[in-house]
Amino acid sequence: SIAFDSKKHPHRRYNPLLDEWILVSPQRSNRPWQGQTEKTSQEELPAYDSGCYLCPGNERANGAKNPHYHGTYVFDNDFGSLINDKVEFSDEYSDFFSMKPERGINKVICFSENHSLTLPEMEKDAIKEVIDVWQQQYDELGSKEFINHVQIFENKGQIMGCSNPHPHGQIWAQSSVPTAVVKTQENLKFYFEKTGISLLEDYLKKELEADERIILENESFVALVPFWAIWPYETMIISKRKAGNILEFSESEKFDLAEMIKDLTAKYDNLFEISFPYSAGIHQSPTDGLSHPEWHFHMHFYPPLLRNAEVKKFMVGYEMLAEAQRDITPEQSAEILKNLSTVHYKSKN
Amino acid sequence: SIAFDSKKHPHRRYNPLLDEWILVSPQRSNRPWQGQTEKTSQEELPAYDSGCYLCPGNERANGAKNPHYHGTYVFDNDFGSLINDKVEFSDEYSDFFSMKPERGINKVICFSENHSLTLPEMEKDAIKEVIDVWQQQYDELGSKEFINHVQIFENKGQIMGCSNPHPHGQIWAQSSVPTAVVKTQENLKFYFEKTGISLLEDYLKKELEADERIILENESFVALVPFWAIWPYETMIISKRKAGNILEFSESEKFDLAEMIKDLTAKYDNLFEISFPYSAGIHQSPTDGLSHPEWHFHMHFYPPLLRNAEVKKFMVGYEMLAEAQRDITPEQSAEILKNLSTVHYKSKN
Ligand SMILES: O=P(O)(O)O[C@H]1O[C@H](CO)[C@@H](O)[C@H](O)[C@H]1O
Ligand SMILES: O=P(O)(O)O[C@H]1O[C@H](CO)[C@@H](O)[C@H](O)[C@H]1O
Repeated sequence: SIAFDSKKHPHRRYNPLLDEWILVSPQRSNRPWQGQTEKTSQEELPAYDSGCYLCPGNERANGAKNPHYHGTYVFDNDFGSLINDKVEFSDEYSDFFSMKPERGINKVICFSENHSLTLPEMEKDAIKEVIDVWQQQYDELGSKEFINHVQIFENKGQIMGCSNPHPHGQIWAQSSVPTAVVKTQENLKFYFEKTGISLLEDYLKKELEADERIILENESFVALVPFWAIWPYETMIISKRKAGNILEFSESEKFDLAEMIKDLTAKYDNLFEISFPYSAGIHQSPTDGLSHPEWHFHMHFYPPLLRNAEVKKFMVGYEMLAEAQRDITPEQSAEILKNLSTVHYKSKN
Repeated sequence: SIAFDSKKHPHRRYNPLLDEWILVSPQRSNRPWQGQTEKTSQEELPAYDSGCYLCPGNERANGAKNPHYHGTYVFDNDFGSLINDKVEFSDEYSDFFSMKPERGINKVICFSENHSLTLPEMEKDAIKEVIDVWQQQYDELGSKEFINHVQIFENKGQIMGCSNPHPHGQIWAQSSVPTAVVKTQENLKFYFEKTGISLLEDYLKKELEADERIILENESFVALVPFWAIWPYETMIISKRKAGNILEFSESEKFDLAEMIKDLTAKYDNLFEISFPYSAGIHQSPTDGLSHPEWHFHMHFYPPLLRNAEVKKFMVGYEMLAEAQRDITPEQSAEILKNLSTVHYKSKN
């Protein structure tokens, strides 16, 4: 029998944030791809697009007009998944038919008035302004008595269901703490109660020691490919100190986060020299009024692409029914991302 | 305040198989769609394609030649995610870096020699033959000492990462019981130990009483949209009696399952008059040699499409970070599927 080599042999890895195993099949990277490919557009966008409902001064679907904003602009999502109204509910459902109304607020945040930009192409100060808005929104929405969780995220690229290239993100704030956040919280809590230390603080220490999956580091944050990442180029930004949520960050920490986001997303764009698609979002403590010493701020990046700008990883079949599966190892991905420049490829031309 | 109406108001529903909540936003169906659309092809395929590596007599990527088979044909996946070799492993990993080698076998099952067919266009007897093969494979693979779980599934359509339209499915058989199966098993077990009855037996009884989400029923099986479905047209086939796995089915039950699969997938094709994409697969007891009185055979269908042949549901951003979310309600989907004919649209022309 053969000696195990994680670069060659199929194996499973454990994700302590979700208490789940994943399947890694490094030998599968050689598989020829004859399946669906994605359209990529290298089209240059104008700084202002009269047909864009996010550009300054333009009309939105519900007839409202955007102000002539500069920098960031926040408004209520015109087609939200949640509604603010209180709904009367008598729990008549039981057994297998449990449901309950969910109250909440959906916001859209334009990152810039400039239609043609994306985060990696924005100035560090402008990204810092986006982070300021995240902080304000988390505070403002989270302070409402009926809002117990504030999910901040960005879908970037058509392939991620984003219908408008204008740089923007979303916030879904709601009464319940959502499924994946509850799970993460349970595992953070279990570890914290056992050891008195944040799970991610200990994890980060080990990752910095191992130095196999670290991509970027500055004074306040580290960007790495988690040991248990499922998407080919999945990454995570973790705060070095245990901050429970975005409210705890100082001005200089916000600048450091802006730099981290800029440099990481620039590397992403440089990988295939395209505007790199992903879903990204922040995991932090719920706004349920309880004390959450277990929470440790982090930001996930889930990019769908696998081998090049046209070939994505399909999370289908086995992955939907059984277990997440990846081909390229987290260490290989980290190596590639680490070696890429943080200077955006477009700025070089 | 307003009285709750599940057809109008955002709400959360509970999935007892996974012990998870999902978000339903019925009011969101009106949202205009300006995002990515999918290519659909109405192209008629030939019964034999000389370029197809699954057609009888043709050569595969590794140089092997398919026999001139008729009906089903099973072979080892040339680019499997698992390998059969035993790998030596000393558990040197600890803390946050837990991994272990995974041993297994990947099979491909051609459903028919006819390149142009799909399950809904095949004869009931021919689908029954596919089920016979599933039974044989579950038995044969599951009997191996190092195989503790046999995942049978089909990815159909380019949009589901399927690179060849030739009708085929896959089997991934492996040492470990995969993540989603372990979770399902825990919940089935908890319920069975508490009540002495199968969770799905009780659930099915309530669904048949409510008659709001039932699509098809025959002597041995029911097809329904689960109360907690996340994909717009997600369905589940459940055996009426508690069979732990496919080995327990008699000849007549296998014919009933073939009929159920044929009729359900014909309805799917009729929905948008296209070859309807999905990932489907069987959940049943692991082959770990233990007794599993909690298990109850069921088959999941996860189709990605939402409003028409071109618009899919994007499970991104909020869904990846927080919680699965759907727009159209399970009751609306069930109503639509129920009212569709089981006569395939192509056979009418
Ligand atoms: O093995 P295939 O069909 O080439 O590959 C397809 O199904 C697999 C199992 O669901 C996935 O891991 C792949 O991402 C997908 O492209
Ligand atoms: O709200 P948007 O950007 O129109 O919609 C997009 O993001 C949402 C949140 O991740 C998803 O529910 C939708 O499926 C997706 O298309």
